[in-house]
Amino acid sequence: MLTDPALSDLRALFGDRLSTAAPVLSEHAQSESLVAAGLPDAVVFPKQTAEVAALARWSHDHRMPLIGWGAGTSLEGHALALAGGVVVNFREMAAVLEVRPEDRLVRVQPGITREALNRELRTTGLMFPVDPGADASIGGMAATRASGTTAVRYGTMRDNIKGLEVVLSGGQVIRTGSGAPKSAAGYDLTALFVGSEGTLGLMTELTLRLHGQPEAVMTAVAAFPSVAAAVDCVMATMQMDLTPARIEFLDAETVAACNAYSGLSLPIQPQLLVEFHGHPEGLAEDVRRFRELAAEFGAEGLDWASAQEDRTRLWAARHAAYRAILASRPGAKAVVTDVCVPISRLAEAVEETRADIAGSGIPGPILGHVGDGNFHAILMVYPDYASEVAAAKALAGRMAERALRLGGTITGEHGVGFGKRPYMAAEHGAAWQVMGAVKAALDPLGLMNPGKIVPGPLDQK
Amino acid sequence: MLTDPALSDLRALFGDRLSTAAPVLSEHAQSESLVAAGLPDAVVFPKQTAEVAALARWSHDHRMPLIGWGAGTSLEGHALALAGGVVVNFREMAAVLEVRPEDRLVRVQPGITREALNRELRTTGLMFPVDPGADASIGGMAATRASGTTAVRYGTMRDNIKGLEVVLSGGQVIRTGSGAPKSAAGYDLTALFVGSEGTLGLMTELTLRLHGQPEAVMTAVAAFPSVAAAVDCVMATMQMDLTPARIEFLDAETVAACNAYSGLSLPIQPQLLVEFHGHPEGLAEDVRRFRELAAEFGAEGLDWASAQEDRTRLWAARHAAYRAILASRPGAKAVVTDVCVPISRLAEAVEETRADIAGSGIPGPILGHVGDGNFHAILMVYPDYASEVAAAKALAGRMAERALRLGGTITGEHGVGFGKRPYMAAEHGAAWQVMGAVKAALDPLGLMNPGKIVPGPLDQK
Repeated sequence: MLTDPALSDLRALFGDRLSTAAPVLSEHAQSESLVAAGLPDAVVFPKQTAEVAALARWSHDHRMPLIGWGAGTSLEGHALALAGGVVVNFREMAAVLEVRPEDRLVRVQPGITREALNRELRTTGLMFPVDPGADASIGGMAATRASGTTAVRYGTMRDNIKGLEVVLSGGQVIRTGSGAPKSAAGYDLTALFVGSEGTLGLMTELTLRLHGQPEAVMTAVAAFPSVAAAVDCVMATMQMDLTPARIEFLDAETVAACNAYSGLSLPIQPQLLVEFHGHPEGLAEDVRRFRELAAEFGAEGLDWASAQEDRTRLWAARHAAYRAILASRPGAKAVVTDVCVPISRLAEAVEETRADIAGSGIPGPILGHVGDGNFHAILMVYPDYASEVAAAKALAGRMAERALRLGGTITGEHGVGFGKRPYMAAEHGAAWQVMGAVKAALDPLGLMNPGKIVPGPLDQK
Repeated sequence: MLTDPALSDLRALFGDRLSTAAPVLSEHAQSESLVAAGLPDAVVFPKQTAEVAALARWSHDHRMPLIGWGAGTSLEGHALALAGGVVVNFREMAAVLEVRPEDRLVRVQPGITREALNRELRTTGLMFPVDPGADASIGGMAATRASGTTAVRYGTMRDNIKGLEVVLSGGQVIRTGSGAPKSAAGYDLTALFVGSEGTLGLMTELTLRLHGQPEAVMTAVAAFPSVAAAVDCVMATMQMDLTPARIEFLDAETVAACNAYSGLSLPIQPQLLVEFHGHPEGLAEDVRRFRELAAEFGAEGLDWASAQEDRTRLWAARHAAYRAILASRPGAKAVVTDVCVPISRLAEAVEETRADIAGSGIPGPILGHVGDGNFHAILMVYPDYASEVAAAKALAGRMAERALRLGGTITGEHGVGFGKRPYMAAEHGAAWQVMGAVKAALDPLGLMNPGKIVPGPLDQK
């Protein structure tokens, strides 16, 4: 609860970049998840690190929680103020601070979105490839250890963040990492903060690794006779060291939704959408090998698009798949699931999940970044039908349990947030308490995004 | 100091796999560094995780330090018992526990060396590529976040460890990571332990990422007119996305030492030793492009070896470079330095270092994994000449300071150990205290490899 002295101290720091207006608070209590949360007490819009540090001192003095906010596209309620407090919206800290083309590094503020960053990079010949679909903020992507379609080749945020500036609980500002390509100088604090979802501090600056824009790109879509055939083809592709830049699975229901929403006319069958990057000579051989392999698994209509406009149309449809699926059941809201399993167990995981969904009566197309063993079911429910919501949550729970049983993880890329917290003990066992010890060491008062990731008093030990 | 009751408790745990014999203690007080350390109180040789856990409980009960020991090849005194205690030699825990070819994973115990592991993998078509030169243990490589010649393509230990089993201070056993290719499920404890040099716990099991043995390999050695030309060629290579599997720099002095020691007849000039991995079609184009680029930088005698025996001879000579350099000054011991800078500052860093070494009168050939911005000077001193040792240490200190001034790190791959600790405050600032807070949270009694990495009472804040 924001007391009068606390509010006036905060106003002294942020002036008209502090809001307690109901519509603003309400906007920052929304998410793509079905998590219901109360309103934050206030929202602030800092412009620089020093303001975030002052805010953290204020938070410490007044024992008020701080919750970072990027583009609001998180799927697990990460940015919701579960226990009140101040939401820190980074939209005014969205600058590219420095591009270093010869080192393939860029230094940015957390509020910039990945599309905005890539627009700024366009003329440099470089790109930041991590692509979670939504036009998320780079800070949010770092906080949730996001990945997406291109991780199979370029890695996740874990692999593409070289250094951070972080404001800690209480206001100390630290820098992690260096400009060198690697380091063995002590604990990897960069990796500790990436994926910590704002529970250990607020990132105020990020140094990202860039990649060359590919000289040549080939994209294809291929229809398979069965889910198993498509998934087995992915496994074989990875085992042949044919590293695609993207290899996406869409089940027949997803294909139907994309056809309707994006005006495609793909056969209503399981499909793989695959892309290779490289120099033309290497690429020709990759494409030849993938074609052979796909044929072995019964692929039909393997259609290679090298023209930019064809590729753009296909990937735009893939990125619109979430909206396309939602549009196929008007009025529904999605329970979006996200599990990741060893590639050898992927076919089994997808097939069992399909059968489970089919038995539930809830529409739930499946799609995913299958080169990483990562897939999603988009469970569509009417939010007012409690029995549907409960059934979807139970399905999601069984998916998480299944992923663990198969040696995988409860979340490949969406993060823990609020939604996946109940499964953390099952995944990590005693290591979850170690996460709690790290949290207590860095944020002893529990002011940084409370209620997320680490064990709390009511969680199962 | 090992009291009688403590010793008899320890003997009850390890029987004849406990030694307090002077030669054994003395062997475990040696290192490749010039750090002088006292003897440990005892050495134990555990066979399984449960024994390591019991040892950690013993350590807790008797307030005795534990120091992990792999192959003893560390260059910064990591495994030295600076404050007494028990050295945990992992040579009896050196098994391959499970190979999962379809997931490209292997589960091993920490004591296995990288060469032994690759021998066991030979028939699987897979390999573990991280190659620090010495036949180090996998546990030691993980603890120091090692890398070496192949990191430019395959990454460091950071990138190739998917999960760990760790015995914590006090004896709790945790598991980190999962079998899935990626995860967003909470703090990245795997990355926290990798590079922690045994100060947060003892690794008892590691799950490693494997890579396919390359279909085709091409190796070349090329002589350049100057250090700057060679280094600039590396920078251009990386910027063209011509990702070599290895790209090593040897200065003229290193080449002379290798010629003498390994019977080569390379021109006494700065050389690049480069290797590409891939399918034959892609490789041919990589080689063609590299040849063009090298010619632009004045390379001569670019001689491609695709025959296994020629490649083996070249890389054996490269791996013997450390011994070759030492042999060039009989009786000398090496102060091995290890800095890493942004690739754009590499030429400057190497040139300044050469000039500094030349002015010192100490022989100090330079070589390195330059695709990563990482290089070493092997400063050869007679250990009994205090003035030489002091001059070498001063040179090493200036190299570390220079690396920081150029935006790099005090160690690319050797780790902090004892030798680099004095520079940690300069590299990390307040973040060093954060490392200390993490250490205190996981090892409140300071029993795990004390005196390494984190700040102590006498360190500069």
